[in-house]
Amino acid sequence: MGTKIIRFEHEGLAKWGVYNDGISLIGGNFPTLRALLEKGHEAIKQAKEEMATIKIEEVKLLSPVTEDAQIICQGANYSTHREESGLEAVKPPYNLLFTKASSSLTSSDAEIICPANVQLLDYEIELGLIMKRDIYEPQSITDDNLADYVAGFVITNDISARDVQILEMQWFKGKSYRTFCPVGPFIYLIEPDEICYIHQLELQLDVNGECRQLATSDQLLYKPAETLEEMSEIFNLRTGDLILTGTTGGVGLHLNAEIFKGLNNPSMSHDEKVKYFVQSQQERGYLQDGDHVRLTIKSIDGAIDLGVQENKIVHSAKVAY
Amino acid sequence: MGTKIIRFEHEGLAKWGVYNDGISLIGGNFPTLRALLEKGHEAIKQAKEEMATIKIEEVKLLSPVTEDAQIICQGANYSTHREESGLEAVKPPYNLLFTKASSSLTSSDAEIICPANVQLLDYEIELGLIMKRDIYEPQSITDDNLADYVAGFVITNDISARDVQILEMQWFKGKSYRTFCPVGPFIYLIEPDEICYIHQLELQLDVNGECRQLATSDQLLYKPAETLEEMSEIFNLRTGDLILTGTTGGVGLHLNAEIFKGLNNPSMSHDEKVKYFVQSQQERGYLQDGDHVRLTIKSIDGAIDLGVQENKIVHSAKVAY
Repeated sequence: MGTKIIRFEHEGLAKWGVYNDGISLIGGNFPTLRALLEKGHEAIKQAKEEMATIKIEEVKLLSPVTEDAQIICQGANYSTHREESGLEAVKPPYNLLFTKASSSLTSSDAEIICPANVQLLDYEIELGLIMKRDIYEPQSITDDNLADYVAGFVITNDISARDVQILEMQWFKGKSYRTFCPVGPFIYLIEPDEICYIHQLELQLDVNGECRQLATSDQLLYKPAETLEEMSEIFNLRTGDLILTGTTGGVGLHLNAEIFKGLNNPSMSHDEKVKYFVQSQQERGYLQDGDHVRLTIKSIDGAIDLGVQENKIVHSAKVAY
Repeated sequence: MGTKIIRFEHEGLAKWGVYNDGISLIGGNFPTLRALLEKGHEAIKQAKEEMATIKIEEVKLLSPVTEDAQIICQGANYSTHREESGLEAVKPPYNLLFTKASSSLTSSDAEIICPANVQLLDYEIELGLIMKRDIYEPQSITDDNLADYVAGFVITNDISARDVQILEMQWFKGKSYRTFCPVGPFIYLIEPDEICYIHQLELQLDVNGECRQLATSDQLLYKPAETLEEMSEIFNLRTGDLILTGTTGGVGLHLNAEIFKGLNNPSMSHDEKVKYFVQSQQERGYLQDGDHVRLTIKSIDGAIDLGVQENKIVHSAKVAY
């Protein structure tokens, strides 16, 4: 049985707790998730054994991943999402990687702010993996030693401004607006023998009560072990970093050969392409002002439950100065 | 007259100094550039006034940007580089942004390691800007207040594995291998009245003594002030973060409509596309094992000189385990 780590505002300060019906406060000062995971083992264990003293309704939740973390994302990593994105619905020849700015992190019950310039706001439920250790050099990683690298699981929503993402070639900007990465409510720190659940998690995202995305993590095309092994060959990872493993079918975005052709039409100006692209997405279920998005991830056997993430969409009238 | 901040290994520890012929050690413990810039003003000023006591030849240089920093990059931001990349040689309708992993940072005299799987290793001299303050919300930024946001300038080389970058859609991976971001030798911390030099810097990159890239920073299409203003509307920046402003013409990469057509040919497999792309780049000046790359940036009037960055290319036989 793992441990549910929660971060929240308590008496004006950011605090950590173990969640178990109520919250048991973790003693000590841990400004980052990295600091907590590196130095807080005893404090976490102790809090877990103590009686819960704080009601979750009485605190303001914070993202359990902190802003010092890298957010590294896999793209097009489920067949169903590949298909709706106009790609072949098979494991691709490369593991597509990109990043989100860590300032996009927000809590599991925060408002997601759609900037005034964004016309196509989309959702992407993803299984988030929390790094357990630093990686500074190539590692040989398989399911057998994966528990040495993955501290736990968390619900994430890779919110995307599709008109910015798709039209501006590189995805970083369109996926990095503030509030575009709700995380939590808690991180489920696994016991080593629970690592097998990484392939047995059911992800579901609803918009206003209607199920839009439903999948299990065994459908991931590039699996966590091979992905972390490849990452270790390229760049460093640090304890507390967040890996987003990709989303499944059912998002608002819809691409196909005809739309690609329009987007590559050299006789169209950029503004015309944006207009064309927005027009092509009219019948799709993009997020509207006031929409409620609800995400759950739990193991098929019910043993592991990552809780409920519930966010409201707020369209910003304009960026405030 | 600004201040040249250098980072180096001294008696087994990472230290900071002010460079002025020799190095004056900066007292105090600053694990990151952010910590130095935030808390080290007095220590920096004091070291600047002291006599240099360490010879630069006797130390091992380190990257003056530390690994906690974000590296945010502008792409296709000079007309000449746009042209060779198969794009229109004018200011584009959007500011193309992407990131490099901060573990790609290395010193100004380090070996750049070409991974065994990379066939097309390329260089990109870029003016690097160091953030002076945190940004947590939209800012109005013009040349008049730019000195409040930019602490200084530094030479950077945005090393790129073109076969990975261009073939794998998102650029993060192909630009993030370890050693792919040499920085320095030093950061030139400007005096506020030197901010005007941001538009008057001459960039030159040589490979084995042959000039390959030569430009001035007034050719930047998206200027620093408008770029930082746009970034402030999207994500947070922190003191010590590094902004790469884009590269000029003269790199190895060569793209045009015909090559794009080949890369988009749906009847070709990924491996065939890689082969086709590598073939299309045969006559270009990609970096070979043993090549020496030399970068300089200085103001046209000679008042500001960011020093000399000189790296050797080493092709790794294979990734070592």
